[in-house]
Amino acid sequence: MTQASICTIGDEILIGQIIDTNSSHISRALNSAGIRVTRMLSVGDDHDTIVNSLKTELENNSIVIATGGLGPTKDDITKAALAELSGSESFRTDSVQLEIIHDILGSRGLDVLDVNIAQAEVPDKCEVIPNRLGTAPIMVFRFPEAMFGHKATLYSLPGVPFEALGALDDILEDIRRHNPVSDICHRTVMTFGVAESALAKMIAPWEEALPEGMHLAYLPNALTGVRLRLSMYGEGNMEKEESMINSELAKLSVMLGDIIWSDRDDTMQECIGRMLASAGKTMSAAESCTGGMISSMMTSVPGSSEYYLGSVTSYANSVKTGVLCVPEETISSHGAVSQECVAAMAEGVRKLTGSDFSVATSGISGPGWGTNEKPVGTVWIGVSSDKGTETFMMRFKGDRKRNTEHFAAHALNFLRQKISKELNICQQVFKTIKL
Amino acid sequence: MTQASICTIGDEILIGQIIDTNSSHISRALNSAGIRVTRMLSVGDDHDTIVNSLKTELENNSIVIATGGLGPTKDDITKAALAELSGSESFRTDSVQLEIIHDILGSRGLDVLDVNIAQAEVPDKCEVIPNRLGTAPIMVFRFPEAMFGHKATLYSLPGVPFEALGALDDILEDIRRHNPVSDICHRTVMTFGVAESALAKMIAPWEEALPEGMHLAYLPNALTGVRLRLSMYGEGNMEKEESMINSELAKLSVMLGDIIWSDRDDTMQECIGRMLASAGKTMSAAESCTGGMISSMMTSVPGSSEYYLGSVTSYANSVKTGVLCVPEETISSHGAVSQECVAAMAEGVRKLTGSDFSVATSGISGPGWGTNEKPVGTVWIGVSSDKGTETFMMRFKGDRKRNTEHFAAHALNFLRQKISKELNICQQVFKTIKL
Repeated sequence: MTQASICTIGDEILIGQIIDTNSSHISRALNSAGIRVTRMLSVGDDHDTIVNSLKTELENNSIVIATGGLGPTKDDITKAALAELSGSESFRTDSVQLEIIHDILGSRGLDVLDVNIAQAEVPDKCEVIPNRLGTAPIMVFRFPEAMFGHKATLYSLPGVPFEALGALDDILEDIRRHNPVSDICHRTVMTFGVAESALAKMIAPWEEALPEGMHLAYLPNALTGVRLRLSMYGEGNMEKEESMINSELAKLSVMLGDIIWSDRDDTMQECIGRMLASAGKTMSAAESCTGGMISSMMTSVPGSSEYYLGSVTSYANSVKTGVLCVPEETISSHGAVSQECVAAMAEGVRKLTGSDFSVATSGISGPGWGTNEKPVGTVWIGVSSDKGTETFMMRFKGDRKRNTEHFAAHALNFLRQKISKELNICQQVFKTIKL
Repeated sequence: MTQASICTIGDEILIGQIIDTNSSHISRALNSAGIRVTRMLSVGDDHDTIVNSLKTELENNSIVIATGGLGPTKDDITKAALAELSGSESFRTDSVQLEIIHDILGSRGLDVLDVNIAQAEVPDKCEVIPNRLGTAPIMVFRFPEAMFGHKATLYSLPGVPFEALGALDDILEDIRRHNPVSDICHRTVMTFGVAESALAKMIAPWEEALPEGMHLAYLPNALTGVRLRLSMYGEGNMEKEESMINSELAKLSVMLGDIIWSDRDDTMQECIGRMLASAGKTMSAAESCTGGMISSMMTSVPGSSEYYLGSVTSYANSVKTGVLCVPEETISSHGAVSQECVAAMAEGVRKLTGSDFSVATSGISGPGWGTNEKPVGTVWIGVSSDKGTETFMMRFKGDRKRNTEHFAAHALNFLRQKISKELNICQQVFKTIKL
């Protein structure tokens, strides 16, 4: 199986000033193309470190993808390191990339500076894949067997995530043309509401009886619950592996029932969106403690304007009463974090926007503001439709960010359950597979 | 200078199913404690790979921090690998961690399973730092000089980010007790609105004249602009280095003027919050294309309820007219993505919530819905106070996520400028440093 390593370059990664998201996106793309990622590495902007690290990765992998250090400024030194690594003796200007540089800067009304023109220069021993989204070209270095004991290819991509990801299709096409590509079969189902260890106990007999070569992974996530991923690294018979995995997931589905909420690598907002769109229904949200997170999650899905009408973030009580028409007496008698308030918020936003469904949250994310009766981490969630309004109280023990995420995730989960029940839609195809 | 490496363990990282955020947070903590992070590495759940990778890192660094693979399920195999690496011959149960396991599961109303009890077992050659946020203990392995050519310490942390970060204070205290710790001085200023390459040209003479040992890094970010970071790895005289860096930043401040919007590693929402809180003023938001992102960003700051009243996400036009009181004629004559509409939205939400300031967005994030006149990436932004309402039109060329981020960032930047001007507050201390 073709093996790859990903190396991200930049001091800003090593001092923790940015989070490296490129590695994750690149590895996902490589995996789905049947290439196994063996390692990810991040190193700083230091010439010798870059050269030596890439050498080691090339010795152990036939494909190495590097990102970063290609910008126009002085702290970007990857290109010089690649020139040394490849034994290049001179630089040449890539005319296609130079044209793109002029186009991009021109369309933004910017002057083309010397440092921009220098970005089109590449070591003579590389091929160029034009980068249409930015000024730095993508460089491909092909090393003969004599150099690392096997044929090896190094791809150098810009560090800007938007540009790195935009280059992936071209990179994958180049890899497919030059390498034997084998099978990796992954399949994911989404669970919610059961802790990882309890889930593991529930499915232990099934897990132990999995066929040889099949591997189960547990991936807990605050916003989506525990993802369960079955993988098989195959030997060229993709259909057989897929059918083996599907058959195991059908058994799992019987065991877990409604704990599984989707049969694909999914998000709550996409699942809710599919159900609403298919039924021609709409929704809205009233957020206090989640502060806009539910609305932001719902509208992150392309096409969400088809079913998402809008929301009110009622952070101040005056907005709860003035905009959402929560009775002042409800807040003075029960408090803003109460069953009564969240029910009135959910009904209020549904009437205000004219939506079919609505969800509302009121809680205490922290730090501070908690009481003995309502400690930090307490949330009331309401979901409403013309069939009625239901409320739920939950408690979590995280920091502000984690509590807010838990609140939003559980609110969307209650909404998903209500929509699924009232519209009679099931998101689990494995229920229909015969054992 | 004490050198460290960070190693995250888990197949879910290598197949790109999750983004590794632990490395970034850990490296930030190590850096601020004066420890230089030389590498970050991610490897899969494979016994030999874990053992060999950690060996290599321990050979090259005196501190290695590993996260992941300590869960209660079968795919978690880090502990066995650490037992082999350390030459441990048996396991013992850590009674403090066992008690924590009982407490945590009890407080959640969960049974304590055999797999949970097994989490309190550790290799005999390690010390334990109790993990109060989760069930897996933090393990510390101290290797004598004979083993790797220098004294080396390996810390093994849980992979769950909440627990890994929660352990950092204890880890840092342990490191400080056992290692000589030297200086790293970083200082960051935030710029907005000028591209990285243009910025580099503007400050080239200054950058070239920086004192030896001082290093400038450019860190572009869609939400915050280009961060400029000056660093110096020092030799024990922290005050001198700080004063040298401050003196260079004062010169930079004169060159860049208002392009620098903050003198610290900052976010727009924190900067706006500080200004509003100090003046006792409030704000609200009306979001169409940004869908709740502005509200979510504003409320991510602890204490934001002091100045943030709330928002309306008016995704549907009916919410723009019905809730925000945008005249129907405005939308039929000019469209929802127009100067007139966004001004009415900003004024509408300010009146609706009674806030002092407001910000509004209406644009086309994509994919689809664009026209020749208003292509995907077009946004109108409005900012309003009792002194008046201003509007701005901008165009971007990203995908949905990137466009939405640009819209939100520029909206917050216009709001920041308006607040700063009308309240007469400056967020740049370097302006007051004498050259």
